[in-house]
Amino acid sequence: MTDTAWLGTACPRPSDTHRNAAEARQNILTKPPGSLGALERIAIRLAALQGTERPRADTVQIVLFAGDHGVTAQGISAFPSAVTVEMLRNFASGGAAISVLARKLDARLEVVDAGTLATSEIAGVVTDKPCHGTRDFSASPAMTGEEFAFALDAGRRAVERAADRGADLVIFGEMGIGNTTSAAAIAAALLGTAPAALVGAGTGLDGEGIRHKANVIEAALDLHGLKAPDVSAVDALTKVGGLEIAALAGAVVAAAQRRLPVLVDGFIVSAAALAATRLNPTCADWLLYSHRSSEQGHRLILEALDAEPLLDLKMRLGEGSGAAVALSVVRLACALHSEMATFAEAHVSGSL
Amino acid sequence: MTDTAWLGTACPRPSDTHRNAAEARQNILTKPPGSLGALERIAIRLAALQGTERPRADTVQIVLFAGDHGVTAQGISAFPSAVTVEMLRNFASGGAAISVLARKLDARLEVVDAGTLATSEIAGVVTDKPCHGTRDFSASPAMTGEEFAFALDAGRRAVERAADRGADLVIFGEMGIGNTTSAAAIAAALLGTAPAALVGAGTGLDGEGIRHKANVIEAALDLHGLKAPDVSAVDALTKVGGLEIAALAGAVVAAAQRRLPVLVDGFIVSAAALAATRLNPTCADWLLYSHRSSEQGHRLILEALDAEPLLDLKMRLGEGSGAAVALSVVRLACALHSEMATFAEAHVSGSL
Repeated sequence: MTDTAWLGTACPRPSDTHRNAAEARQNILTKPPGSLGALERIAIRLAALQGTERPRADTVQIVLFAGDHGVTAQGISAFPSAVTVEMLRNFASGGAAISVLARKLDARLEVVDAGTLATSEIAGVVTDKPCHGTRDFSASPAMTGEEFAFALDAGRRAVERAADRGADLVIFGEMGIGNTTSAAAIAAALLGTAPAALVGAGTGLDGEGIRHKANVIEAALDLHGLKAPDVSAVDALTKVGGLEIAALAGAVVAAAQRRLPVLVDGFIVSAAALAATRLNPTCADWLLYSHRSSEQGHRLILEALDAEPLLDLKMRLGEGSGAAVALSVVRLACALHSEMATFAEAHVSGSL
Repeated sequence: MTDTAWLGTACPRPSDTHRNAAEARQNILTKPPGSLGALERIAIRLAALQGTERPRADTVQIVLFAGDHGVTAQGISAFPSAVTVEMLRNFASGGAAISVLARKLDARLEVVDAGTLATSEIAGVVTDKPCHGTRDFSASPAMTGEEFAFALDAGRRAVERAADRGADLVIFGEMGIGNTTSAAAIAAALLGTAPAALVGAGTGLDGEGIRHKANVIEAALDLHGLKAPDVSAVDALTKVGGLEIAALAGAVVAAAQRRLPVLVDGFIVSAAALAATRLNPTCADWLLYSHRSSEQGHRLILEALDAEPLLDLKMRLGEGSGAAVALSVVRLACALHSEMATFAEAHVSGSL
């Protein structure tokens, strides 16, 4: 079995020295103190994480993990499983939303097949998977312990590649027909919340479909004993998880261990981040929240993570698209922080 | 007296044909319909305004109007009037927030002295003003009818320059110590709302300062007879306005008349936009709202304008900075709209 001991290594602490220096700088820039709102706060947090007075988000790696879900056999998605692999090709050929965003933002997009049904390699996609899709978790655990450890490690490997390329921060995205069902199941298990509160339309279910999806999750939590208090993240991820979600959780922990800030995307990535903070609570400091998805349930996960996202654009696409849009705002926050003149430099009078 | 008859010329209607075409395109792009949320809506609105199926926000002109306010004699600002002119130099030399944003966004920034106390021309600033600051509106009308007409026209002239440079859309910003007081007074008069509900901290007043500011406005509305029902925008702007706010109102109407969409900034620009929609209601279609300011009172103005801004970043700087940050999001919305593959192009299956 693949070793998962690396998961427990403590993540570094943000630098208080650099946080204080960045805060002090914000207060002498030519603007009323605090008037750049969330832009000031994100620049200060990044400064503390990057250990610098002048934070950067220039070199960014977007890693998109894809996986398929056996539970789609239960009719919980508006789209067929075939779309996962079809979209892998669309990511690679530049036509998907995240492909367009990565191009416009001059960010590197790496697509990882962490467990789709694809039976051969796809050009432009990194294949790093233990098996072809999960088992239908309405009948049996989604994955074995070996498969889980492999998927976590695929996340870690992707982070190593991003770090080698000198990323200032990383964005993780996902694709996988059925994965809002898996993410809702994981969150319900970890938060001890009724699935109905976490289940939304996904790619486009109607009210009847949403009720069915909640019922499928409810039954699965019963089947796998995931309604107990203090369900472990390992149990939740292996029994009702997805391979791309396990990879995301591993990637979040590995990024934090490597001092790489993570700009967290929407519902699925947040569910994986929630699991990651249970696997290794010291990773929490390294998570910056990009947006509030309109997928019902994201709100509860964000609250549990004590997260205040930058944007609320009613997006619910996944792929890392919300985080990519927020990157444009983070970059402007860094530029303002680093390039604005101080009152003294600009010979501007301070307050009365 | 300068002629203001141009104000009444009806603005063109957005193109229903292109709105429908853009909507249809959004529904065949490789994503669940609606999953890009506000990004879809802004791209569709821009398509209708620009009369194209593929909207653009590439060439953008930011025009910042500056003015000084006699009412600062009443101690309604945390900063001295001298800062207005000091900041003009900071805009021109590249150290202010809007200067940094314009540079990063590759947008052209034009700074117009529409009525500051500056007694000589400032390098890099367009001087286009009828006088040096307004009169203290706690004692007399802020400006004469001639000064008002001149300021409106300065706004129109700036729009002509932006149009000549081929702008896809325009952003208007402002600077003027004391101008949240003037903007709150205008909005209170036009909305028939108590000043206290519209007055905020501006550049940094404390609770006592905010109460004093509201009292000064309250007394001025009494003095000038601006508590009557159906106060005209001309009356509000001349009696308690600012020269930069009148220029903004003129610029908003002129942009809409020239088919130039306006990405509206925060509290001050929204108050000017409110006045503009009273001067010429047909300009309303051309206004896109960028952000919700944390300046108390912006919420009420946005409600009156039936506006749903893209961002809520707790900014309260002015200068057009909120709109500039939102421009990065609008550009990504346009890129997604124009560059994503359709289901057919990418050979991706539609919904079940």
